[in-house]
Amino acid sequence: MKIQIINGPNLNLLGVREKSIYGSSDFESYLAELRQRYPHVEIEYFQSNVEGELINKLHEVGFSYQGIVINAAAYTHTSIAIADAIAAINVPVIEVHISNVHKREKFRHVSMIAANCKGVIAGFGLDSYRLAIEALLNE
Amino acid sequence: MKIQIINGPNLNLLGVREKSIYGSSDFESYLAELRQRYPHVEIEYFQSNVEGELINKLHEVGFSYQGIVINAAAYTHTSIAIADAIAAINVPVIEVHISNVHKREKFRHVSMIAANCKGVIAGFGLDSYRLAIEALLNE
Amino acid sequence: MKIQIINGPNLNLLGVREKSIYGSSDFESYLAELRQRYPHVEIEYFQSNVEGELINKLHEVGFSYQGIVINAAAYTHTSIAIADAIAAINVPVIEVHISNVHKREKFRHVSMIAANCKGVIAGFGLDSYRLAIEALLNE
Amino acid sequence: MKIQIINGPNLNLLGVREKSIYGSSDFESYLAELRQRYPHVEIEYFQSNVEGELINKLHEVGFSYQGIVINAAAYTHTSIAIADAIAAINVPVIEVHISNVHKREKFRHVSMIAANCKGVIAGFGLDSYRLAIEALLNE
Amino acid sequence: MKIQIINGPNLNLLGVREKSIYGSSDFESYLAELRQRYPHVEIEYFQSNVEGELINKLHEVGFSYQGIVINAAAYTHTSIAIADAIAAINVPVIEVHISNVHKREKFRHVSMIAANCKGVIAGFGLDSYRLAIEALLNE
Amino acid sequence: MKIQIINGPNLNLLGVREKSIYGSSDFESYLAELRQRYPHVEIEYFQSNVEGELINKLHEVGFSYQGIVINAAAYTHTSIAIADAIAAINVPVIEVHISNVHKREKFRHVSMIAANCKGVIAGFGLDSYRLAIEALLNE
Amino acid sequence: MKIQIINGPNLNLLGVREKSIYGSSDFESYLAELRQRYPHVEIEYFQSNVEGELINKLHEVGFSYQGIVINAAAYTHTSIAIADAIAAINVPVIEVHISNVHKREKFRHVSMIAANCKGVIAGFGLDSYRLAIEALLNE
Amino acid sequence: MKIQIINGPNLNLLGVREKSIYGSSDFESYLAELRQRYPHVEIEYFQSNVEGELINKLHEVGFSYQGIVINAAAYTHTSIAIADAIAAINVPVIEVHISNVHKREKFRHVSMIAANCKGVIAGFGLDSYRLAIEALLNE
Amino acid sequence: MKIQIINGPNLNLLGVREKSIYGSSDFESYLAELRQRYPHVEIEYFQSNVEGELINKLHEVGFSYQGIVINAAAYTHTSIAIADAIAAINVPVIEVHISNVHKREKFRHVSMIAANCKGVIAGFGLDSYRLAIEALLNE
Amino acid sequence: MKIQIINGPNLNLLGVREKSIYGSSDFESYLAELRQRYPHVEIEYFQSNVEGELINKLHEVGFSYQGIVINAAAYTHTSIAIADAIAAINVPVIEVHISNVHKREKFRHVSMIAANCKGVIAGFGLDSYRLAIEALLNE
Amino acid sequence: MKIQIINGPNLNLLGVREKSIYGSSDFESYLAELRQRYPHVEIEYFQSNVEGELINKLHEVGFSYQGIVINAAAYTHTSIAIADAIAAINVPVIEVHISNVHKREKFRHVSMIAANCKGVIAGFGLDSYRLAIEALLNE
Amino acid sequence: MKIQIINGPNLNLLGVREKSIYGSSDFESYLAELRQRYPHVEIEYFQSNVEGELINKLHEVGFSYQGIVINAAAYTHTSIAIADAIAAINVPVIEVHISNVHKREKFRHVSMIAANCKGVIAGFGLDSYRLAIEALLNE
Repeated sequence: MKIQIINGPNLNLLGVREKSIYGSSDFESYLAELRQRYPHVEIEYFQSNVEGELINKLHEVGFSYQGIVINAAAYTHTSIAIADAIAAINVPVIEVHISNVHKREKFRHVSMIAANCKGVIAGFGLDSYRLAIEALLNE
Repeated sequence: MKIQIINGPNLNLLGVREKSIYGSSDFESYLAELRQRYPHVEIEYFQSNVEGELINKLHEVGFSYQGIVINAAAYTHTSIAIADAIAAINVPVIEVHISNVHKREKFRHVSMIAANCKGVIAGFGLDSYRLAIEALLNE
Repeated sequence: MKIQIINGPNLNLLGVREKSIYGSSDFESYLAELRQRYPHVEIEYFQSNVEGELINKLHEVGFSYQGIVINAAAYTHTSIAIADAIAAINVPVIEVHISNVHKREKFRHVSMIAANCKGVIAGFGLDSYRLAIEALLNE
Repeated sequence: MKIQIINGPNLNLLGVREKSIYGSSDFESYLAELRQRYPHVEIEYFQSNVEGELINKLHEVGFSYQGIVINAAAYTHTSIAIADAIAAINVPVIEVHISNVHKREKFRHVSMIAANCKGVIAGFGLDSYRLAIEALLNE
Repeated sequence: MKIQIINGPNLNLLGVREKSIYGSSDFESYLAELRQRYPHVEIEYFQSNVEGELINKLHEVGFSYQGIVINAAAYTHTSIAIADAIAAINVPVIEVHISNVHKREKFRHVSMIAANCKGVIAGFGLDSYRLAIEALLNE
Repeated sequence: MKIQIINGPNLNLLGVREKSIYGSSDFESYLAELRQRYPHVEIEYFQSNVEGELINKLHEVGFSYQGIVINAAAYTHTSIAIADAIAAINVPVIEVHISNVHKREKFRHVSMIAANCKGVIAGFGLDSYRLAIEALLNE
Repeated sequence: MKIQIINGPNLNLLGVREKSIYGSSDFESYLAELRQRYPHVEIEYFQSNVEGELINKLHEVGFSYQGIVINAAAYTHTSIAIADAIAAINVPVIEVHISNVHKREKFRHVSMIAANCKGVIAGFGLDSYRLAIEALLNE
Repeated sequence: MKIQIINGPNLNLLGVREKSIYGSSDFESYLAELRQRYPHVEIEYFQSNVEGELINKLHEVGFSYQGIVINAAAYTHTSIAIADAIAAINVPVIEVHISNVHKREKFRHVSMIAANCKGVIAGFGLDSYRLAIEALLNE
Repeated sequence: MKIQIINGPNLNLLGVREKSIYGSSDFESYLAELRQRYPHVEIEYFQSNVEGELINKLHEVGFSYQGIVINAAAYTHTSIAIADAIAAINVPVIEVHISNVHKREKFRHVSMIAANCKGVIAGFGLDSYRLAIEALLNE
Repeated sequence: MKIQIINGPNLNLLGVREKSIYGSSDFESYLAELRQRYPHVEIEYFQSNVEGELINKLHEVGFSYQGIVINAAAYTHTSIAIADAIAAINVPVIEVHISNVHKREKFRHVSMIAANCKGVIAGFGLDSYRLAIEALLNE
Repeated sequence: MKIQIINGPNLNLLGVREKSIYGSSDFESYLAELRQRYPHVEIEYFQSNVEGELINKLHEVGFSYQGIVINAAAYTHTSIAIADAIAAINVPVIEVHISNVHKREKFRHVSMIAANCKGVIAGFGLDSYRLAIEALLNE
Repeated sequence: MKIQIINGPNLNLLGVREKSIYGSSDFESYLAELRQRYPHVEIEYFQSNVEGELINKLHEVGFSYQGIVINAAAYTHTSIAIADAIAAINVPVIEVHISNVHKREKFRHVSMIAANCKGVIAGFGLDSYRLAIEALLNE
C-alpha cells in the first residue's frame, strides 16, 4: 500500500514557525515515527510552497497510489486549482490540518478543496496525519 | 477511560433514513463493534432530537469523563447554545460527521460548535466515530 | 386514510395571541369542523413548543400515515433539524401558514423546510389547513 | 362568480416544456376539467409572455371580478410592476406555482408579488390552481 | 419647444389606485392644467405598462424633442433596458416620482436609470412634473 | 407583585462555567439576596436548557404576573420562537445579560427578542437582574 | 414667507472646488439672483462644515419658517443625526444636490436624510435650489 | 440550415447609439455581409425592445431551426423569463455580445441566461455574431 | 461621588420632538428629580449636537469622575470617534437610550460604542438614566 | 502570423480528467488538427500548472506575437496577477473555456481576467480555441 | 517650505491614551524633535476632535502650503466630508497612522480618504509623520 | 545591515508596463540610486512571478536580515500563503506599493498581508521603497 503525504506552503518551517499554533516538532521526525508505526505502508512525502507543484504531485500519484493525505495550508482557503486537481484524479484524498482552523481567522473556516476530498480531519496536531492514514487503511 | 458519544437530531433513524448519504447500518450494531474493538474504553451512548437535552448530557458528563464525541447533526450549523455548553465544560469534545458536509448544501459548511471543540472529523461514514476515539486515546 | 396535523411553537395560544394576525378562533374548535367535513379521514393533532418533539412526532408517523400537514411556525425559518426530519421520512408533508408570511418581517420570508415538503400553502387563515388536506386527498 | 386565471411567461408551453418539472398535460385540457368541476364559477383564462400585458389584464378585471389566480412564472421573482398592479386593484389575488419553487434555483425562492397577494399555493402541479379556487370560494 | 412626458406601469390608474400615496386626481386633468400654464411648450403624453413600449417611445422622440420627463414607476428600480435607452438618445431626460420613494420600501430607494438622466425630482406629488418642465426650460 | 425570572441555556452552570466572563457566584445565592432586598416582591425562578420549555414558562406566567426578566442566553441570538412567545403574552418582559454581549463574538450583538421586550439591560454582572426589577417597579 | 437655505461641508468652496462637477459660480452671487427673482420671499442662508451646527440651525428655524432647502453634501450619505433633526422639526425640508449624485461614487447614491424630507431635487446645478423654492411656494 | 438571430432592446439603434461602445455600422448592412458569407445558411433576423416578444420568437423557432444566436442586451442581466424560454426549447442557443461586457458596469458581468445557452461569445464587435454561426456550423 | 450625564444630538429637543417616541417631559425637569433622588451624588449635565464636543467632554471628565452616563443618540450608530474616546478614558461609561432602539429602524440596532462601555440600558424612557446611576452606585 | 495558446492548471489532464465535462480527446491531437486547418498561422502551445509560469509566458510573447488564446482554467476566477500580466502586454488576448462555466459552480461565473482581454468565448468544447483563432484572424 | 500636520479625534490624548497601541510620548515633544530635524521646513500643527474643524483647516491651508500630513484617526474610516475637502484643495495630502490599522478591528481597514490623498503611511509609530515629510520633500 | 527587497508578479516589466500608473524608469536603475544613497546598507533584490518563490525567499532571509521590503503586487490582495510566510519569520517586513492602490479597483483596497507586516507605505512611486528603508533604519 502506497500513501502520499503532501504538505503545502510554510509547512517546511514546522517546528520553527509559530510554535504555539503548530507545535515544536519538525515534520521529518514525525514522519519517521509514522513509518515505524505503519511498517506495511509505503509513505511518500512531498512539500512545496508553489501551488502548481502541489498540483503536479497530485497528478503524478493520483492514478496509482492507494491514498493521499493533503495539508494544503493557506492554499486550502483559496485554491480552486488544487480542488480541480483533486477532482481530476481517482485516488481518495483526505484533507488534514494541524491546528483547529475554526478557532482561527474567519478566512480559514472555508475550504475550497474539502468538497472534492473524501473527508476532513483538523485540530489534532501532527496526529491528524495518523488519523488520516487510519481512515485510508479502513477503506 | 470513559468516553461519551452524543448523537443529535434524526440520527436515531440511521440505517433507515437517506441511505445513500448515511449508509445502511444502524448505530447500535456499530456501537457494539466499537466496544469490542476498544475493550478498555467505557463507551456511553446518548441520542436526542431535543437541543436542550444534548446540552443537559454535555453538562452531566462534561466534568468527569475523558472525552466526548459529538455528532450534533443539524444543530451543528445553528446552535450557539450547544457551542456555549461545550465551552462551559472541561472534557475535550470532538465534532464528527458521517457524511462529508462540504459536499452538501451551503448551510452545512458552517459549524457553530467547531471553534469550541478540540478538532473535527468528517466524511468517513461511521468510521468517523472510531477515528475520534483514536484521537482521544492519543491525548 | 390517516393525516397528522403538527403545530409548532406558540400555536397553542391560537385565539388568544395576536388576534389581528392569527384570528380569534382556537384550533380545537376548528379541528372539530375539519373532522366533520372530512368524515372518512382520520385527522390526528399534535402541538408542541419543543423543536425536538416536533421531530419525534414526524418520525413516529412519517412511515405509516398518508400525509402530514405541518405549521412549524417560528421554527419554519430556522430549523434545519425539522427539515432533515422531513427529508428522512417518506410520507408527503405540506407546509402551511395561517398568515401570509410574506407580508410580515423579512426573516419570515425564508423557509428552511419548504424544499423538503411537497408544497406550501400560506395566507388563508385556518382555511390553509383544509386546503392542505384537499391537496393530500388529490394525490 | 367570476374568477380570472392569469398565466405568465412560458406557461403557453405547458405540456411541451420541461415535462419533468411541469408535467405533461397542457393547460387548456386542465381548464376544461376545472370548469366542469366548478360549474357555477365563470373561469376566464389569459396567458401572455409580456409583463405589461399581464398588468393590463390585472387592471381590466381587478375592480369587478371575485378573484384572480395568478401564476406569474419568472416574473414572480423580478416584477415590482406586477406587484404594484396587484396592490392597485381590489379583487383578492392568489399566487400559485405548479412546481415547488423552493426545490429549485435560489432566485426562485423570492417572490416580489407575494406580499401583495392574499396567499400563496405552490408545489401541487396543476392542482395548485384548483386549491386557489377552493380558497377563493371560501372567502 | 416640445417636451414628452412618459409614464410607466400602473400610472394609468392615477386617481384610482392607492390614493393615500398617489393623490386623487387623474393625470389627464393635471395635464390640461400644465398645458395651460406653459402655453408656449408643446407637451406630449404617453403611458404604457409595457417596458419595451416605453423604450420605443424614448427612441422615437429622443433625437428631436427638447426634453423628456419620465416617471418609469416600478421599472425605475429594475430596468437596465430603459437606462440603456436613455443613454442611447441625446435629448435630456428628467426622472420624476410623485411620491417620495425614499419613504417607501427599500427596493424603491435604488434607481437604475438616474445615472443616465440629467437629474431627479421626487416627492412633490404631481407638481414633480411641473418642476421638471421648469428645469428643462432653464437649460 | 409577582415577577418571574427566566434563565436560558447553560445558566445552570453559573459560578462553574467560564468565570472570567460570568463571575463566580451561583444564581441561587444571588436570588436569595435579591428576595431579601425586595421583600414585597414575589420573585419566581425558572431555568431550562430547552428552548420550548422557556416558551412554555412564558405562556404560563405571561398573562398574570407583573413582570418577566429573561436572560435567554444563546437563544437570544437565534430564537424567533421565544420572540414570538414574548409578543404573544401581555406581561412586560425585560431582556437582561450578565456580560456585555457587545464585547464578545459578533453573533452575540444581535438579539432576536429585544424588539418584543420593553427594554434591554446588559453588562452589569448579576446586578443586571436587580436593575431589571428596579425598572419593573417603576412602571 | 421665510425660507432657510442650509449648505453642508465644502460648499463654501463653490466656484473654487472641482469646477467640472460643481460649476464655477460662487453661491453668494447665485443667492443674490435668487432673492431678486423671488422678491416676496425672505431667503436666509447658512453654511457650515460642522455636522452639529447644521443640526443647530435646523432646530433654530425648524418651528417657525415656511420651508428649508438643505444640501447636506457629504453628510447626506452618513448623518443619522441630521436625519433625526429633520424628523424632529415641523417645517417642510427639501433635499437638493447640485450634481446628479447617481452619476458619481456608489456611496453617494444613498441618502440617510431623504426619507425624512418632503422631496428630493438633484442634478440641475445651482438651479436645484430654485426648483426647491418653486416646490415650497406651491405647497 | 436555418439560423435565427435575435436582438434585444436598443439594438435597433446600432450605428446610431453610443458608437464608441457599439461601433458605427448598422445591423442590416452587417446582416447582408453575413448572408453573403454563408450562402447555404438561411439567416433570419428579429429585433424587439419588448421582453415578451423575444420570448415569443424563441418559442416560434425553438423547435424547428438548427440554431439561435441571441444578443439579449440589457435583458441578459435581468430576465429569468428569457432564460426559462431558452430552457424550454430544444434548439441550441448561443449568447453573444458586441462589447466586452466585463469591461463595463458590474451589473453587466452577470448573465441570467448563459447557464441555459450552449455557450457565450462576447467582445468581438459585430464579428461575435459570425463566430456564433461558425460555432453552430461545427455542431 | 461625581457622575456626568452626556446627551447627544437632538436630545435638546426632548419634550418637543416626536413625543410618541421620546415622551413629553423635558430633560431639565427630569434632571431636577434625579438630583433630588440621589442627594449624595453630584450629577453634571452636558448636551451637544456636535460629535467633537461630546468627545471633548468625555476627555474632560473621563479621568476624574466616578461614572459617565451617555446617550449618544444618532452618533451611537456611526461614531468610531466617540467609541475611541470612551476607550481612551478610564471612568466607567454606561450607554443609555430612552426608546427601545431594537423596535426601530435597522440602523439603530447597531451600536458602535457599546463594546467600549461597561454596559447598556435601553427602552425605559427617562428611567434609563436612573437605572444607569443605580448601576454606577453598585460598582 | 504567430499565435500563442496558453493552457492553465489541470488542462494537461485533458482527455483523462472528468470526461463528461471536458470531453475525451487530448489537447495535442486537437492542436495538430488546428495547425492543419490554419497552415498560415504559427500556433505555439504552452501549458503549466504554475500561475507564475503562465505570467512568464505572457510576458515572453506579449510584445511580439499577433494574438494569445488563454484558458486560465481555475486561475481565471482568482488570479489578479494574470489579469495584471494581460493588462501589461500589448498583444490582444482572448479568454476561452471548454465548458460553459455558467452551468457550473457559482465561483466559476466570475472571471478576474475577462476585463483585460479582448473578448471571451466559452462552452464550445475544444472548438472554443478555433473560434478564438477565427476572431484573431478577423482583427 | 510650509507643511501642515493635522491630527484628528482623540490624538490630543497621545501619551495618555492606550499606550500599548499609541506609545507613551505626547505629540508636542515629538513635534519639537521633528522641527529640529527639518530646520528649513515650517511645520504647523493643528488638532481637533470636531470633524468640521478639520475640514476648515484643510480649506485654510489647502491652496497655499506645500504639503499636508493628516492623521484623521477615527474619521479616516467614516468621513466622506473630509475626503471631499481633500479632493477640493490642491496641496498634496498624505494620510498617516501611528498604529498598523490592518492589525486592528475590521472597520479600521477601510479608509474613506485614502483615494483622495497622494499616498498612505501606516504602522511606524510617530515615525510615520517623519516619513510623510520625507515623502513631501521628495516631490 | 542587510535589507532584502522582494518584488512580486509583473514588476519585472517596470518601465515597460502601464507607464501612466507605474512610471517609466526600470527597477534596476532605481536600485543603483538607492544603493548609492545608502552605502552602509546591503540591499539585496529579488523578483519573481511565482507566489511560492516569493515565499521561499521570505523563508531564506527571514531569520537573518535586518529588514524586508515587499511589494507583493497582485498577490497582496489574494495570498494567505505569503501572509503566513511573513507571520512565520521574525525579520520586520514592510509592505510597499508604487501606486496609491486606494485610487484603483476595489479589490486592490484589501491587503491580505498588511496585518502581518510592521507597516504599509503606498502611493509614492518608486520613492515608496526608499521610505521603507528609512523606516527600517529608524527601528
